[in-house]
Amino acid sequence: MNIQYLLDDLVADIKATPPEGNVADYIPGLETVDPDQFGIAVAMNSGETYSAGNSSTEFSIQSISKVFTLALTIAKDEDDLWTRVSREPSGTPFNSLVQLEHEHGIPRNPFINSGALVVTDRLLTLTGDSHACLQTFLREQSSNPSIEVNEAIAASESLTGHRNASLAYFLTSYQNLVNPVPEVLNAYFRQCAIAMSCEDLARGGSFLSRGGIGANGRVLTADQVRRLNAVMLTCGTYDAAGDFAYRVGLPCKSGVGGGILAVAPGTCTIAVWGPRLGKSGNSAAGVTALAKLTERTGWSVF
Amino acid sequence: MNIQYLLDDLVADIKATPPEGNVADYIPGLETVDPDQFGIAVAMNSGETYSAGNSSTEFSIQSISKVFTLALTIAKDEDDLWTRVSREPSGTPFNSLVQLEHEHGIPRNPFINSGALVVTDRLLTLTGDSHACLQTFLREQSSNPSIEVNEAIAASESLTGHRNASLAYFLTSYQNLVNPVPEVLNAYFRQCAIAMSCEDLARGGSFLSRGGIGANGRVLTADQVRRLNAVMLTCGTYDAAGDFAYRVGLPCKSGVGGGILAVAPGTCTIAVWGPRLGKSGNSAAGVTALAKLTERTGWSVF
Amino acid sequence: MNIQYLLDDLVADIKATPPEGNVADYIPGLETVDPDQFGIAVAMNSGETYSAGNSSTEFSIQSISKVFTLALTIAKDEDDLWTRVSREPSGTPFNSLVQLEHEHGIPRNPFINSGALVVTDRLLTLTGDSHACLQTFLREQSSNPSIEVNEAIAASESLTGHRNASLAYFLTSYQNLVNPVPEVLNAYFRQCAIAMSCEDLARGGSFLSRGGIGANGRVLTADQVRRLNAVMLTCGTYDAAGDFAYRVGLPCKSGVGGGILAVAPGTCTIAVWGPRLGKSGNSAAGVTALAKLTERTGWSVF
Amino acid sequence: MNIQYLLDDLVADIKATPPEGNVADYIPGLETVDPDQFGIAVAMNSGETYSAGNSSTEFSIQSISKVFTLALTIAKDEDDLWTRVSREPSGTPFNSLVQLEHEHGIPRNPFINSGALVVTDRLLTLTGDSHACLQTFLREQSSNPSIEVNEAIAASESLTGHRNASLAYFLTSYQNLVNPVPEVLNAYFRQCAIAMSCEDLARGGSFLSRGGIGANGRVLTADQVRRLNAVMLTCGTYDAAGDFAYRVGLPCKSGVGGGILAVAPGTCTIAVWGPRLGKSGNSAAGVTALAKLTERTGWSVF
Repeated sequence: MNIQYLLDDLVADIKATPPEGNVADYIPGLETVDPDQFGIAVAMNSGETYSAGNSSTEFSIQSISKVFTLALTIAKDEDDLWTRVSREPSGTPFNSLVQLEHEHGIPRNPFINSGALVVTDRLLTLTGDSHACLQTFLREQSSNPSIEVNEAIAASESLTGHRNASLAYFLTSYQNLVNPVPEVLNAYFRQCAIAMSCEDLARGGSFLSRGGIGANGRVLTADQVRRLNAVMLTCGTYDAAGDFAYRVGLPCKSGVGGGILAVAPGTCTIAVWGPRLGKSGNSAAGVTALAKLTERTGWSVF
Repeated sequence: MNIQYLLDDLVADIKATPPEGNVADYIPGLETVDPDQFGIAVAMNSGETYSAGNSSTEFSIQSISKVFTLALTIAKDEDDLWTRVSREPSGTPFNSLVQLEHEHGIPRNPFINSGALVVTDRLLTLTGDSHACLQTFLREQSSNPSIEVNEAIAASESLTGHRNASLAYFLTSYQNLVNPVPEVLNAYFRQCAIAMSCEDLARGGSFLSRGGIGANGRVLTADQVRRLNAVMLTCGTYDAAGDFAYRVGLPCKSGVGGGILAVAPGTCTIAVWGPRLGKSGNSAAGVTALAKLTERTGWSVF
Repeated sequence: MNIQYLLDDLVADIKATPPEGNVADYIPGLETVDPDQFGIAVAMNSGETYSAGNSSTEFSIQSISKVFTLALTIAKDEDDLWTRVSREPSGTPFNSLVQLEHEHGIPRNPFINSGALVVTDRLLTLTGDSHACLQTFLREQSSNPSIEVNEAIAASESLTGHRNASLAYFLTSYQNLVNPVPEVLNAYFRQCAIAMSCEDLARGGSFLSRGGIGANGRVLTADQVRRLNAVMLTCGTYDAAGDFAYRVGLPCKSGVGGGILAVAPGTCTIAVWGPRLGKSGNSAAGVTALAKLTERTGWSVF
Repeated sequence: MNIQYLLDDLVADIKATPPEGNVADYIPGLETVDPDQFGIAVAMNSGETYSAGNSSTEFSIQSISKVFTLALTIAKDEDDLWTRVSREPSGTPFNSLVQLEHEHGIPRNPFINSGALVVTDRLLTLTGDSHACLQTFLREQSSNPSIEVNEAIAASESLTGHRNASLAYFLTSYQNLVNPVPEVLNAYFRQCAIAMSCEDLARGGSFLSRGGIGANGRVLTADQVRRLNAVMLTCGTYDAAGDFAYRVGLPCKSGVGGGILAVAPGTCTIAVWGPRLGKSGNSAAGVTALAKLTERTGWSVF
């Protein structure tokens, strides 16, 4: 299988038939990105990285950060966390409060915003500085010491993040945040505003396809990674998780910056990026490319 | 790996520490089953079948029938179906009407009751007799010509199935059933009331782990099977699908008769049975056994 | 106050500026009515009846029947009923199942469809023939022995009433209907299909403004009538009850046939009819006319 | 009718059979109140004020303040407000976010917390200092220049009001608050923390029963008052509005401090106070007393 050829072909396909959809406009700073860029990178478990298109352009990882904060939290202490957040698909938009109220302040899963706020709160308690912990981890795993927050985007989220502030106070009203709301929000916004390229991201997530082994040794146990991948598959793409599993067949986590991180356990980690979003907030080009890639390679877990 | 040894060990574990939970009591006929029976069977893609415990005792397959009616429908005509039913996890109990109303009569997926009624309606239209079609298929795939409906259970469901009648009329009010409600309900209840053993079931579902190849040749294409497995993983165990993926890591479909069908793609199909149900309506012993089995064998798709 | 002059003026206003809105189209037989008819009748407690426009034209009373079946049930036995149905505004469309599921089969109030099915079920149990009981009552109170069911409309509701069938089976699944579903539905559809004119209706509902005294003596106690009027005010116009109270200020019950019955306690009973419906299913002309009438007469209860 | 005798009798009844229920415990400062106090005051339109029990003891008016801020806003500019808040009963608890999300940030009515935050925001815009405006108004109308905020309670609400902060940020995310959240919350908490006695409150609300005429002349037009009373009747007592209308039959507004303000249009304004709350957050003694009072006096609007 000539992976480089496959990737070049995918990029050509996307360029030939650009997907519809709009760039996320509710976070100032994201809407200025050229919407028709597209990049893809594949980090094989065997060591090589293949890439094509705008694969070295940095973009805002946004919710993809949630995979890494969850991994870091699980690595330190899993028990407290799973009493405060469930592991079920939400079936509702990523920023919904409805389910959270019906379920008394316990988020459905760690990948919707409310759940990620709880994870951030826990990581803050465990480390004192969840954002620094995340940045250090991503630099190490990606072998890219220049990964950092896009401060303009972090600041713009602070200003406009009323819905996340609402979620955070709501969680606090159920005593499911223990750190002060402004601190949790600040950490959360900074984590989301980290900028990485597809190449960074594919390498950074390699421990997910390699049974927990990262750039400098074990990050998670094999069991922990299997379970994290399971949560990605059922909850990683908001209210489109079922369709993602149907079409792509891999554990994935998407972000509204247009990136998607996908894991083929035992084989490789894949990062795609295309800023135009479909209606559930997932990269339109990314979904198309991943569906074609798994169809052509047979990398589906099913 | 000595699979027979593993299965015997699992049965011993379950017998030593029987799970809590009650037998489904809302379907007369199910509640008279000895609740502490437990069986397991594994049909390897290589041909052997291993089994332990009450693996040849017949039980009511109930919602596990939904995998087979879906497969039979997909094999005949997939296009109409997917305009009438979605493929997303429901996050709500299997017989809920709430989501169905919010989503204007389009069931969330084919494995909740409303979705399965739509599948049955479609299969009725395609075949004229969905139940006969299913029974013939199961007999062939299981190599057991004596598989049939438990008429007492079918009759008791007809009498007490007010919630399913409500769902069926509700779907009809959205024009999402085209056959008369009593006919659809009759077919549905008969399909659910089919009795099979773990051994029957593991063999009957073998096409799911064998890329679509059944006892007498191809049932579905490889792509169709991958997708069906994806729907099982995200939607097969009601509002516990996320936890199932987390703990078991395999596509599964459960029934309130206490059976669970699980698929390890490329490796084997597994059937377990224990009548006591956990709070989401899945066999308590079955979940425990499957979690241990995948932990010990590494058969998780993740 | 020259009431006849006021009514003539209202009719002229409505004819000059006909309201928008459509005739109910989901009940075959209703959609053939000339949509621009408009009638009004006022039965004063002092004995006179004033009317204007198409006030002697019969129309399908539909949900207005629910006031009368509730009154008849309360007159016979109030206690059982109020354990089976609440008295709170629903805030949801008249045929919603969502709230009913969340509240375990107890309808929010007796004027939404689910609640009215429970009332009909109870009246069936109490009388053996709820429809005959209702028809006799309306004939007596209206002094019009020719009031009867429009059989064509009753039949068309039986054929198309899938949503009501769904509600009835749903209630049965919670054991909140005790009579067989087909019998309850038949009675319910026949009650809704009774045809009356504004004049009939204003006279028929006179006991509501006269402290419970009807054509042939007491129908309800003064306390019972006060409470029935309270339920009409808070629940009589579906999810527009708050706006009705705000704009009209009288207890009202509307029907999708375009009629509205309104009560000015101590003063008069009013019936209006205009087939075009606003978005909540209440007569558009009727609301406009009632709002103007209470503004000009000061008949608001507030 | 000897009103003084009736009130003394009511107080004796309540003392003889104290209601169950607990004092609101989620606002520090409220839970230290002696729970078995009970007071009532009736301000007749004819000028006299009758009272009994602990009728001159001050208590925290909490949500009763919402009637007054709504009246003050309506008096200044009604048009903007009714585009930002509906007038329908909510059917949900007073601090729910569910409906608010389903209805895209438009609160169901001005008496649930979200709606009252919008009213406060509007009054802030109109006056620059909504709390000062309210305090001045209450002092004038009650002829009690010493009415003021209980600062300890205002401060405790600021500290623990996470749910209200969540609502405020949620509204802001829909652009339905225009002033900064901390300012709106501060005004809201101070308004709720105003302390008044039953006598103050009955006099302070007199304009509601007197067609809009307050202590120093017209506060609202007659039409505006009718409509305000309509909103109180349908929305003034949270998710118990239907039952209140059924049992009491008067426009009412309750607060979790245990007070209820009731209006008998054309006759009198009534204030009751008893700290123990029923399950919907309304004073248990207050409801009982009002139901008896309207039964004995016939003051129901129905």
